[in-house]
Amino acid sequence: MEFSFTTLGIASALPTADSYPSAHVFKCRGRLFLIDCGEGCQALMRRSGISILKIENIFLSHLHGDHIFGIFGLLSTMILQGRTAPLYIYAPKAFHHTLKYFKDYHGDGMLYEIVFVPLEMKEKMKIIDLHNLEVYAFPMNHKIETFGFLFKEKEPQLNVHKYLVEADNLSLHEIAMLKNGEDVIREDGEILENQKYTYIPFEPRSFAYCSDTAPFERQAEWISGVNLLYHEATYCSDNTDRASKYFHSTAAQAAQVASTAGAGKLILGHFSSRYADKKQFLQEARDIFAESYLASEGTVFEVPLKRLDY
Amino acid sequence: MEFSFTTLGIASALPTADSYPSAHVFKCRGRLFLIDCGEGCQALMRRSGISILKIENIFLSHLHGDHIFGIFGLLSTMILQGRTAPLYIYAPKAFHHTLKYFKDYHGDGMLYEIVFVPLEMKEKMKIIDLHNLEVYAFPMNHKIETFGFLFKEKEPQLNVHKYLVEADNLSLHEIAMLKNGEDVIREDGEILENQKYTYIPFEPRSFAYCSDTAPFERQAEWISGVNLLYHEATYCSDNTDRASKYFHSTAAQAAQVASTAGAGKLILGHFSSRYADKKQFLQEARDIFAESYLASEGTVFEVPLKRLDY
Repeated sequence: MEFSFTTLGIASALPTADSYPSAHVFKCRGRLFLIDCGEGCQALMRRSGISILKIENIFLSHLHGDHIFGIFGLLSTMILQGRTAPLYIYAPKAFHHTLKYFKDYHGDGMLYEIVFVPLEMKEKMKIIDLHNLEVYAFPMNHKIETFGFLFKEKEPQLNVHKYLVEADNLSLHEIAMLKNGEDVIREDGEILENQKYTYIPFEPRSFAYCSDTAPFERQAEWISGVNLLYHEATYCSDNTDRASKYFHSTAAQAAQVASTAGAGKLILGHFSSRYADKKQFLQEARDIFAESYLASEGTVFEVPLKRLDY
Repeated sequence: MEFSFTTLGIASALPTADSYPSAHVFKCRGRLFLIDCGEGCQALMRRSGISILKIENIFLSHLHGDHIFGIFGLLSTMILQGRTAPLYIYAPKAFHHTLKYFKDYHGDGMLYEIVFVPLEMKEKMKIIDLHNLEVYAFPMNHKIETFGFLFKEKEPQLNVHKYLVEADNLSLHEIAMLKNGEDVIREDGEILENQKYTYIPFEPRSFAYCSDTAPFERQAEWISGVNLLYHEATYCSDNTDRASKYFHSTAAQAAQVASTAGAGKLILGHFSSRYADKKQFLQEARDIFAESYLASEGTVFEVPLKRLDY
């Protein structure tokens, strides 16, 4: 029942000797989503023991090089590994140029299909609807067209309290109706109210990815109540003006978003190379939002499953 | 008077967790040449303390992704660093597609000119002629159009033996004539034979880069007598058939080229990821050519200057 986010590339546009540009992996119950794909992504995945062939979906927030230049090597490696499963890429619509370049000049021997899903919404919109997971995309506030992503587990099917199954001698048919959210009316007219008999077995979990962006009005609303939030923090407060000029966020701004949205935990990343020491990011964020953490290569942020059985 | 080759990316098409695809730096007397530019190249350069802004020329042997996918990040970083000096790129002519893709979609804010020199020779040809260095390119034997490179210091100007300057009371004019390779005829008819009075102050050095290629007929001839040879060795002898099928070389074949060419020293690289331990490459090469060495990230192979003063 894994629900985790692994930070791989934590640098911004100018990588350093020991940190790479944006690349991350979100895992949900065996499914693997790559979010952004900066240069070096495939090496980072290997170092973190994440299988490249297991990627089903790639999400590219925007088309700045530090978020996409790893895609060429990754797609090539998939060719060499003999991938046949289709690969879904969600990205701003202009990504078709990059895809065309890749296919035209580096696509020899490709046995898998790339299904490109262009993003162009102006509001928050559902883009994937799976059995137990929904993914939403929403526009953000960056220099070029950029999208954030929200992953939400679906409400699980209701469970029926075990002690009532026995106490009221529920039939299989009655249990099925209750699990389906219905009330039961017995032949003798007795009404079994759904609310009394059922409970939600676990709290659905959620994760949001916001990079790159300056804060914007509807951000906290669109990710309201998210358990885990990855938010870019390119600068500290000494460069608030610069952050604004380049449509980036400071650590404090990211923390403010987390706080307003009522997030559970905040991960900061996309650090400018001008900060040798990352402590400043953490301190400025924690002054506003205590549950702030720094991204680092290969760190796994897990949202544990809260079972509500009783 | 540096003349050195630094190996950075030593993997072949499938990089491993701790080795990157082809990228190397050749340095000659303060000039810096990047040879191949696989994914991760700019991070490798940073880790080895090599300045990205100092690159004047980039040589791309061929257009397989593992030799060029680092170019996007590198050219972008040069934009961010505010480069204004022109950058020369020598590559097979089809590289103009990659350049067009980069300029069209990632070239915003570029203040430097890229001078693209397409390679399409069928014979060994001089492509750069500097004050003290010549560079040659020649076609190799790979699946797609691929070029090798030969860097040769020029013969230095002659020096005049100091003891003869004093013994024969040479005038400045006579010294200049001798340095210029001429004989001197004095007013009294005495002839100062150039050969007796002059010597070459140091042996010109040379370096050749051969990757990717299967052995080919004129290879040893074209790099004859080279001091330092980098040669791909994708496989060991257990995969000789595979090497031949994919137009690559084994360590033994690379060593045979070095031996036939009378090379001074051989560096092996471009290792297939199927070999966890590189010792086999070294052993098989040294059985044929004792002065064989393995490339590894950041290793500098220097050709020391042999001064001939006396």
